[in-house]
Amino acid sequence: MSSEPDFIDWVRARQSSSAQVLLPAGDDLAILKMSADDLLLVGVDQVLDGVHFDSRLHAPELIGRKAMNRNLSDCAAMACLPTIALVCVALPKGVGEDYARRLYDGIRIAGEAFDCQIVGGDTGSWDRALVVSVTILGRSAGVTPVRRSGAQPGDHVYVTGPLGGSITARHMTFTPRVREARALAQQHAITSMIDLSDGLSRDVAHIAKESRVGIRLESRLIPIHEDVNRLADARSPLEHALHDGEDYELCFTAAPGVSAAIRVGTVFAIDDVVDQDVDQDVDQDVDHSVERAGAPSGVWLDDRPLTPGAFAHVF
Amino acid sequence: MSSEPDFIDWVRARQSSSAQVLLPAGDDLAILKMSADDLLLVGVDQVLDGVHFDSRLHAPELIGRKAMNRNLSDCAAMACLPTIALVCVALPKGVGEDYARRLYDGIRIAGEAFDCQIVGGDTGSWDRALVVSVTILGRSAGVTPVRRSGAQPGDHVYVTGPLGGSITARHMTFTPRVREARALAQQHAITSMIDLSDGLSRDVAHIAKESRVGIRLESRLIPIHEDVNRLADARSPLEHALHDGEDYELCFTAAPGVSAAIRVGTVFAIDDVVDQDVDQDVDQDVDHSVERAGAPSGVWLDDRPLTPGAFAHVF
Repeated sequence: MSSEPDFIDWVRARQSSSAQVLLPAGDDLAILKMSADDLLLVGVDQVLDGVHFDSRLHAPELIGRKAMNRNLSDCAAMACLPTIALVCVALPKGVGEDYARRLYDGIRIAGEAFDCQIVGGDTGSWDRALVVSVTILGRSAGVTPVRRSGAQPGDHVYVTGPLGGSITARHMTFTPRVREARALAQQHAITSMIDLSDGLSRDVAHIAKESRVGIRLESRLIPIHEDVNRLADARSPLEHALHDGEDYELCFTAAPGVSAAIRVGTVFAIDDVVDQDVDQDVDQDVDHSVERAGAPSGVWLDDRPLTPGAFAHVF
Repeated sequence: MSSEPDFIDWVRARQSSSAQVLLPAGDDLAILKMSADDLLLVGVDQVLDGVHFDSRLHAPELIGRKAMNRNLSDCAAMACLPTIALVCVALPKGVGEDYARRLYDGIRIAGEAFDCQIVGGDTGSWDRALVVSVTILGRSAGVTPVRRSGAQPGDHVYVTGPLGGSITARHMTFTPRVREARALAQQHAITSMIDLSDGLSRDVAHIAKESRVGIRLESRLIPIHEDVNRLADARSPLEHALHDGEDYELCFTAAPGVSAAIRVGTVFAIDDVVDQDVDQDVDQDVDHSVERAGAPSGVWLDDRPLTPGAFAHVF
């Protein structure tokens, strides 16, 4: 857009210097010097108007905040320290520079809450809807990154807070669990972790698949957020907690005894699925038996295979 | 989108392992181990339907190729080696998985031509138009990154190829000048560099501003691409070469004598602007004098201040 150079100047004026950032935004690329001891963790995540937010309802600061916080939540899921971010914005023509600055302020302030500095970006304008994508660079900073793939039979499954009903407001205003993740990973042998964006039923299935284990959730243990009471539909509170998504709490596995989180289930060996299968007439092909049991996700709720629910926003 | 997990599996199956990539796409973040000797260079750049491409005219492979190549061109502009990329795609609903794969193939193959591996991404679908943003991570790999800010009075200004008329097709199919940039920076003391995306008149103004120098382009030296002959409009061939943009050639400054590129002008000290000003009745405030001379960009064409032209696509 014609105002892009001015906007970049404005962004640059708000950048603080850092030992890691030798050259921030304003050139073709930013130049960084990472510590030799660190692993570098990278990811990207976008928010789309009408899918992840509604520009008719949500102020630009809130949209920017959500765009950044989703990425910080990915850092939490790996127990790394957010460090650097890059921002890509497709602005609808005619929203004006003030809107762009409020959007950017939302992104910047959310990042600063976790010492995550914006070092570059790209802003364009078009006659379509708003898109914001944020790239995040984190560093291990003394904590081995926690993957999705390490869950062990006998582990307990935990979440860091109550679930469900985030669509009522929380999906725009959540606080990413970066500090909680670092503390948990420093104090316990966390075997796998993910942040709850797609919903407990879907996200725990990623852990089950990547770790090649089964996971049994216990309905009586699942913490239900009071926000579900603000939703009037056919779903039960438990179904909201299982399937709504956008909770941005952490779900992780560890040996029993983590008091700082809420236990919601247990990890079991995938071979055990056969014994637990309601259909005893299955062969010993493990994946196949899981499939025949109707639980290709490897996730059970109490004594039944759990089918992940589809999360649908209701803008 | 509901098919996202399958698409990620498909992407993962196409990833090759690397000493630098400890964990590629598929978890919350990718895990990298960069060499302690390297500086890390990062940037992000997007292409928008109707602005940078036209999905009615351009095949998804070409769109993907352009999205990646624009970022590789940014690496060229800093003389760094492209290493890692992340891809963020907002897909119009209903285009289908085949379209997404062809798009991704275009991105992947363009990256592989420069050993740049995709390690992560985010795909979403919406009822709007296609957006592709690519984040690039490069490394210095033995060459000090070339900034925009080092041009010195007395330097010559060079470009790596003929300019203008790229809208006829070249803007989708150019080859990023990564190898040329590395060779130039290894063989010469390149004092500043930029890739020509906005057009010579605009991009050279970035060098002038960041380096706090003036730049005089010489119209007789500017190489004009034969593509400008395919455009029938009121602009002269020289105007196309100066203002069209999307050439993705490099523009750089160095001491006189670089035979591997085309000289287009000279760097002069900004104090000299006063002497060269057609209005002799100016005070000694340098920036002010430049402004009064009508050349706030600090760029001259022959003996007149050059006003950057606005580049407009004609989809």
